[in-house]
Amino acid sequence: MTTQMHEVSAPALTLAGFLDHWLGHRRLTRRVIAAFPEDQLFTFSAAPPMRSFGEMGGELHFVSAMTLDGLLSGEWKEPAWAAAPRTQAELLAAWDALSARIEAEFGQIDPAMFGRVAPLPWGEMPGWVAAIYAVDNEVHHRGQGYVYLRALGTEPPAFYGR
Amino acid sequence: MTTQMHEVSAPALTLAGFLDHWLGHRRLTRRVIAAFPEDQLFTFSAAPPMRSFGEMGGELHFVSAMTLDGLLSGEWKEPAWAAAPRTQAELLAAWDALSARIEAEFGQIDPAMFGRVAPLPWGEMPGWVAAIYAVDNEVHHRGQGYVYLRALGTEPPAFYGR
Repeated sequence: MTTQMHEVSAPALTLAGFLDHWLGHRRLTRRVIAAFPEDQLFTFSAAPPMRSFGEMGGELHFVSAMTLDGLLSGEWKEPAWAAAPRTQAELLAAWDALSARIEAEFGQIDPAMFGRVAPLPWGEMPGWVAAIYAVDNEVHHRGQGYVYLRALGTEPPAFYGR
Repeated sequence: MTTQMHEVSAPALTLAGFLDHWLGHRRLTRRVIAAFPEDQLFTFSAAPPMRSFGEMGGELHFVSAMTLDGLLSGEWKEPAWAAAPRTQAELLAAWDALSARIEAEFGQIDPAMFGRVAPLPWGEMPGWVAAIYAVDNEVHHRGQGYVYLRALGTEPPAFYGR
């Protein structure tokens, strides 16, 4: 082991790497949404008063849409929470439409946006922090969805599957 | 919105950014471990036969230690699972010692390691994939810990707190 200190401005993750990371997590989250029995997705909680996984999924959808739009335009608008999907079919349709948008439009994001301050509705942070936070928040709530599925007696999708 | 496609080899996340990301998540996970009643950390499950959060925490500790050692040395050794911490005090002590090592030794990692193939015990992947996977796995299981805490009637630490 060397004791030399290396340059830490080198990239750990490129934009292409981040896009793969984001889309891979979205594919797994889609499988978790789809794994729920339709009549439990918006009603069941493994630890009331925690929200249903369907309600969490609506939040994840809105935050990801805001993140794509924010990185593209520089405008980070409070999501229209009241318009959240209310059924499994609605949530999956919204999910797929946004995944297609991310895949098509991510390359249009100005790389400088990742270093610029992003004015989110809940505070200012660098664009890359907002982007990685959106994915982390998805992983966090999806982990909760795994407990809900286990409590419902359903085997969740493999975590490493992307 | 421009329709120009931008260079996607630009960094989304620098090594310094990744270090902050990793340590910030570790600080939050430490708070979650500490929030458990001592007699529930290694016994309670919100959805048996899921593991206790203490057992998950041992896994997270070992995988993070393997990740630091692997990025430093190029050797990714199967963790000594049988030596896992068995009490809250042991887990917190192991956690703190590793956080101190990450902070002190991360700058000694050759940046090329993030692009090189890392031979993990469960498969080969680029170093940065192994690194971000370790953090994702932590966020995933910590999210499960939040459900356990709620089921135990304990308010978990704020997700955005780092």
